[in-house]
Amino acid sequence: MSDSVSDAAGEPPGLLRQHKPGLASQYLPILEWGRTYNGSVLTSDLVAAVIVTIMLIPQSLAYALLAGLPPVVGLYASILPLVAYAIFGTSRTLAVGPVAVVSLMTASAAGAVAAQGTALYIEAAITLAALSGVMLAVLGFLRLGFLANLLSHPVISGFITASGILIATSQLKHIFGVSAGGDTWPQMLGGLASAIDAVSLPTLAIGIPATLFLFWVRKGLKPALVKLGLSPRAADISAKAGPVVAVVCTILAVIAFDLAQRGVNVVGAIPQGLPPFALPSTDPGLIGQLWVPALLISIIGFVESVSVAQTLAAKRRQRIAPNQELIGLGASNIASAFSGGYPVTGGFARSVVNFDAGAETPAAGAYTAVGILLAGLFLTPLLFNLPIATLAATIIVAVLSLVDLKTPGKLWRYSKPDFAAHMATVGTTLLAGVELGVIAGVGVGLLLFLWRASRPHAAIVGRVPETEHFRNVLRHQVITVPHVLSIRIDESLTYLNARWLEEYVLERVAERPALRHVILLCSAVNEIDASGLESLEAINHRLIDGGIRMHLSEVKGPVMDRLQRTHFLDELNGRVYLSQDLAFSEAVEDDGKGRYQIADLARGMI
Amino acid sequence: MSDSVSDAAGEPPGLLRQHKPGLASQYLPILEWGRTYNGSVLTSDLVAAVIVTIMLIPQSLAYALLAGLPPVVGLYASILPLVAYAIFGTSRTLAVGPVAVVSLMTASAAGAVAAQGTALYIEAAITLAALSGVMLAVLGFLRLGFLANLLSHPVISGFITASGILIATSQLKHIFGVSAGGDTWPQMLGGLASAIDAVSLPTLAIGIPATLFLFWVRKGLKPALVKLGLSPRAADISAKAGPVVAVVCTILAVIAFDLAQRGVNVVGAIPQGLPPFALPSTDPGLIGQLWVPALLISIIGFVESVSVAQTLAAKRRQRIAPNQELIGLGASNIASAFSGGYPVTGGFARSVVNFDAGAETPAAGAYTAVGILLAGLFLTPLLFNLPIATLAATIIVAVLSLVDLKTPGKLWRYSKPDFAAHMATVGTTLLAGVELGVIAGVGVGLLLFLWRASRPHAAIVGRVPETEHFRNVLRHQVITVPHVLSIRIDESLTYLNARWLEEYVLERVAERPALRHVILLCSAVNEIDASGLESLEAINHRLIDGGIRMHLSEVKGPVMDRLQRTHFLDELNGRVYLSQDLAFSEAVEDDGKGRYQIADLARGMI
Repeated sequence: MSDSVSDAAGEPPGLLRQHKPGLASQYLPILEWGRTYNGSVLTSDLVAAVIVTIMLIPQSLAYALLAGLPPVVGLYASILPLVAYAIFGTSRTLAVGPVAVVSLMTASAAGAVAAQGTALYIEAAITLAALSGVMLAVLGFLRLGFLANLLSHPVISGFITASGILIATSQLKHIFGVSAGGDTWPQMLGGLASAIDAVSLPTLAIGIPATLFLFWVRKGLKPALVKLGLSPRAADISAKAGPVVAVVCTILAVIAFDLAQRGVNVVGAIPQGLPPFALPSTDPGLIGQLWVPALLISIIGFVESVSVAQTLAAKRRQRIAPNQELIGLGASNIASAFSGGYPVTGGFARSVVNFDAGAETPAAGAYTAVGILLAGLFLTPLLFNLPIATLAATIIVAVLSLVDLKTPGKLWRYSKPDFAAHMATVGTTLLAGVELGVIAGVGVGLLLFLWRASRPHAAIVGRVPETEHFRNVLRHQVITVPHVLSIRIDESLTYLNARWLEEYVLERVAERPALRHVILLCSAVNEIDASGLESLEAINHRLIDGGIRMHLSEVKGPVMDRLQRTHFLDELNGRVYLSQDLAFSEAVEDDGKGRYQIADLARGMI
Repeated sequence: MSDSVSDAAGEPPGLLRQHKPGLASQYLPILEWGRTYNGSVLTSDLVAAVIVTIMLIPQSLAYALLAGLPPVVGLYASILPLVAYAIFGTSRTLAVGPVAVVSLMTASAAGAVAAQGTALYIEAAITLAALSGVMLAVLGFLRLGFLANLLSHPVISGFITASGILIATSQLKHIFGVSAGGDTWPQMLGGLASAIDAVSLPTLAIGIPATLFLFWVRKGLKPALVKLGLSPRAADISAKAGPVVAVVCTILAVIAFDLAQRGVNVVGAIPQGLPPFALPSTDPGLIGQLWVPALLISIIGFVESVSVAQTLAAKRRQRIAPNQELIGLGASNIASAFSGGYPVTGGFARSVVNFDAGAETPAAGAYTAVGILLAGLFLTPLLFNLPIATLAATIIVAVLSLVDLKTPGKLWRYSKPDFAAHMATVGTTLLAGVELGVIAGVGVGLLLFLWRASRPHAAIVGRVPETEHFRNVLRHQVITVPHVLSIRIDESLTYLNARWLEEYVLERVAERPALRHVILLCSAVNEIDASGLESLEAINHRLIDGGIRMHLSEVKGPVMDRLQRTHFLDELNGRVYLSQDLAFSEAVEDDGKGRYQIADLARGMI
């Protein structure tokens, strides 16, 4: 095998490996960073935690709303999961909690088994968190993190764009103050259209200004603060507190104008207290309905989280361990399930804020959890009059920034198969929902990959005059003779292209009646699996039937080692040459009539 | 794109391409070979047809029995399907009809929806043929033949071995003359064990000698005939008529000793006449239950058939067109459905006999169909007293030759992943049935492929002293410097390894605090898809954050062409070099302190 295999193996890399951690600290990264924890790190972590807490309170309420759950569930999902991640996670700055896309997926999965507002709906959300947590942890222990590779970048970006559109559309009903449902885009638009007569003007009077204000906060506040003399970093972090301003102002507006009595929906009473102890369902019927969405939530959540974590870790030359990340996120989701929460993962915006605010260890997450806990204990009465429309505005502004309309054009120019996978994901997600969207994207991507893998690169080569180099006959002026065919195979021989190899070689042979020698130039063949070997054997036997000899040249060392463990080399009707040049020279002279001399060929006399 | 793509495209190759066929003769190969048909070819085809007919009569009865269908259905499946293949197929010598593995799969699928002997069971078998025919034809028109690549050689051989064991076991009840059922091996063995008290000794007296005789025919008859003066080829073909001898002798034994009255099951009355006109079911419920098995039957049947066809075509330097083969087999199965048959495909043994007997065109198949038709019209009364045990013996001897117990050892030595896929297929097929067996084999194979694809080959390279060559630092004595890291990537960059690339590069960077330059040597990168490009962009941005420059060297022409359509090269924090040597030389001298001179390095002075 290659020398690189041990390098690329699934061991915990970088950050952890430098200390050669034992099994305990591999599975409990807290044992590593906890050893060097001190006062200065504590201060940094505390500052970051306060800032993230302020940002997370409205977010967690809003995403619970998006998931179709009572707002307090969003707070529950922002306490114990953060503590669990602090213990088991490997990223030093990832901020875990409810996120938009996973909330939408939760709404879609729970909505398929129960109506919003019922106890079964909440039970389904809790069970999704538990299933997802167990799946993530199992994938981590089995080191199956590589399965997330099935989600290509174009599929992920297509899914995020389509989810952003779906989420923003789903929140319009709260801005308009009407009731409307639907899992797909046409359903949502239809629902909105038919409810448009019932629009609540007071709600609109809260919702539209809140949305515009939040858009301005996102685009215009930072430059304004910089002009006022703040440093760009401080301005950036302060701008993230914009939603808190919107929350405070709209609460005051509701109280001042008594809007709750005029049809503006408000959050209402949020139960004060500690997160409850909850138990996920063990009903096989419910689990049977939820395991596929739970798996998709797990994979999407993992991919989103690990991308953020890697981006941030690289900025400080730290590393994360993807398989341990699975375990960390699994622990978070299990903690969420048992404390009445719903599926969580690492969020992009809040992790960046955490990083920028100076968080140095996962302890910052635990301090954030304490902040949210205190908010749950003491602040919730103040949120009674918070309009739902404000939360909806928060969501709309957050998710519209995820919508990326430039990618399709870029992909179209760069790679048609990637464009196809992207558009399949966008289209299916909008028209058939989030679950089928992910499945369609993975399916199309894999189908196109297999299609390309089944027709790899190969070229017929000839000798460049007066050199020992061999180049593609279609691209270069090279020397060939009718009784020798040299084929350069530019790919490892695996079962996905084994059939192609037989077809390709035998077709080229069938076209050349004068052929006596076939040379396969194997310099780019990194591996030959059992199917590839069988195809080589089949080609060999068929060439024997046709009176043609087959040679191999420039076979790599590890490949040769494995071939020597088989009978193939004994059965081979030709030789294995160290160099293509030698193979070609000998084959040229063996033309059966003594007409060719390699020296003449080299001098260009033939 | 590569120059090889047009070569490898799905056009009808070899045989057909030489004549530059139009669309009509691409889809109707009969128009090609029919043009040159003459008397000498007719004679060859007729001789082959007579021999194949004699071989096919007992086989078609036996395989119908294996499929749980009345024997006459086997005859029906051996008439029109052969004519359809003669019109649409591209192999000149493939003999289509009922085969063992597909018969077993039919029994398993039809048995899941109805009991053997009921009208619904027969309807299910007919519907399977229709579904399978439509699927094959659609796959052919969409040029999706490459999907058969998902079945690797180890999976196919595992499936065939396990099916052989299952089939032989399922026929033991006929040798013992008892009733027993079961879809899996444990069920079958259990059924046999509990029925052992009811063994019919007269049946055993037919079954055991018939089995032993047929084994001898397979192993010992040909040498015996050669000793008697026959040519090896004639001896070989004569030996294939062995089952006919067994059929005649056991029929005579039944008549002579009145065994039908003593508990020996016989074939009984076979309806005489033309194949009926049948209609497959259009019941959505039945189709819903049968489409997955029909798809598996299609793929397994196609893979078996195309392997045989390719082997035989290559012997005469002919070629087949795999996508047109799908259409040919699709037409065969549709013909089978509408004439009361069940799923068919190209059979190995009978195709070899057809080839050896001198068949030159698919017309031989049509003449065989006429032979079977005549047998159905006139011979069936003679088969009334044919013991079921004789047919079972025919099947057992035929399928046990498919059982290959050497493959697991070979695979274990050559490739552990292939061994795993093989054993998963064998185990699942024996313990959970044929359908799950195929699915498990494909699943394990794909999982292992994705796992390997997610950790491709790469190596850190250094310069071989006094040359311009760069080699793996772990395998060679090479020159490196602490502030330059050269990584050779031995694989195309696709979405399956994009995440690996980021991890691999950034981990190597994190280990080297003095680093200033990273050079990616791309000589083996045949393709960079959109995910690979995004990973390169991400690496570039992270290296910029870390104050490190990234360069590319020896990027292939087609890859470079596509990169130039993006903004990547503008954003790249380094250069693209034509040669690794130049890249390395420039990077070495830029050490930030003027300490390194490439000339010194070349002289080995550092």
